[in-house]
Amino acid sequence: MTTFGASLHDVQKGHVEIRAPIKDIAKQQQGLAHAGLTFALGDTAAGYAALTCMPEDCEVVTAEIKINLLAAGIGSSLVARGRVLKPGKRLVVVASDVYAVTKEGDEIHIAALQGTMVPVSL
Amino acid sequence: MTTFGASLHDVQKGHVEIRAPIKDIAKQQQGLAHAGLTFALGDTAAGYAALTCMPEDCEVVTAEIKINLLAAGIGSSLVARGRVLKPGKRLVVVASDVYAVTKEGDEIHIAALQGTMVPVSL
Amino acid sequence: MTTFGASLHDVQKGHVEIRAPIKDIAKQQQGLAHAGLTFALGDTAAGYAALTCMPEDCEVVTAEIKINLLAAGIGSSLVARGRVLKPGKRLVVVASDVYAVTKEGDEIHIAALQGTMVPVSL
Amino acid sequence: MTTFGASLHDVQKGHVEIRAPIKDIAKQQQGLAHAGLTFALGDTAAGYAALTCMPEDCEVVTAEIKINLLAAGIGSSLVARGRVLKPGKRLVVVASDVYAVTKEGDEIHIAALQGTMVPVSL
Repeated sequence: MTTFGASLHDVQKGHVEIRAPIKDIAKQQQGLAHAGLTFALGDTAAGYAALTCMPEDCEVVTAEIKINLLAAGIGSSLVARGRVLKPGKRLVVVASDVYAVTKEGDEIHIAALQGTMVPVSL
Repeated sequence: MTTFGASLHDVQKGHVEIRAPIKDIAKQQQGLAHAGLTFALGDTAAGYAALTCMPEDCEVVTAEIKINLLAAGIGSSLVARGRVLKPGKRLVVVASDVYAVTKEGDEIHIAALQGTMVPVSL
Repeated sequence: MTTFGASLHDVQKGHVEIRAPIKDIAKQQQGLAHAGLTFALGDTAAGYAALTCMPEDCEVVTAEIKINLLAAGIGSSLVARGRVLKPGKRLVVVASDVYAVTKEGDEIHIAALQGTMVPVSL
Repeated sequence: MTTFGASLHDVQKGHVEIRAPIKDIAKQQQGLAHAGLTFALGDTAAGYAALTCMPEDCEVVTAEIKINLLAAGIGSSLVARGRVLKPGKRLVVVASDVYAVTKEGDEIHIAALQGTMVPVSL
């Protein structure tokens, strides 16, 4: 989160929003947001969404997650919205969507993720 | 579709609904709907959704699809709702959700699928 | 398994092979093996592979699995080989490959699956 | 690649190996390699593997990819090995495995990826 300048913008039970600028460090050769940044944001939003459905002394780790890339990450920032599809004690099934935000504030849907988080007691 | 007694119930641009009874042929050893039936319905609904966004002389084939199973398929029938996340000439990204329908008509979310369809000219 | 006439052909710790004829019931409109059959065999082989790494009083259920379809299922039978990538008490990560077998006995790689099985005590 | 200090170590037709140190920038709160780094390396290795099966004037973009995380990324560096499961003009199906390398040189399998690359003409 810190590396990419990401910040948590909206937290509700089962829903979380994260925003991050598209910094030079995360651009690939054509100047677009790297798929790795898109993945990291989408995965992180999904993980935080899972956390909102769990006891306070838990963390989550990603067991698996799949990303479909829908469009190029052109814009000034990215927003990722994670949600819980199915809470559970052993597994939490999650999804998230990542959007590129243009200077004008328009959102372009650039990725859809679906995965599984595993609760871990601290 | 015929094998499983499935039928198309709602078709709109980018959205399709398919219903099928849970017949004995598709039950596994505990009497639940087999994951194979759940998968086949979800995949088929996603494929038909993709077709609604394409020219009439096209078919689609599934390039890849992932299923997260959320709950046991207990009920008298299944309903699968497919939708298009991103249409395209080369690839159509799709998702679908499968629900078990109880005798009382309640829907239980049993699976979420996300995948990629490829248009094929006839 | 019974519906599709599938049978277990080779069982070793972490590796399982399943074979099934391509029967009329499992053909789609072009006469090929339906993706649903390919999925069901691949998923089943992966599940049995997981079982070989677990105590005897356990079953497994598929938490999630992804299939990439590589080629059309043309042939007289299918063979699926499942393997364990990572055993575990809470999750078993698995993979499997499905091949169409021609009359001459040649194998064509038609699908690759990767997924997660969850052990369930009986 | 540059951000993470990654380098290409072995390139053969259909197979590529990439290595990267686990730098502080890519560690998450427990000091392990972040899933985002593991994903980025695995995705990149899979993409380069796809490139080895294509004409010189092509690039690839990731259409979709799934990662199963198998173990914590503890070690001094990561190695990712990508391979082509099925080459094609429209789609290239790929897989890769990521290993954490300990100071003693032992490799721990930490992630398995499976995905689809799309060739793009320059």
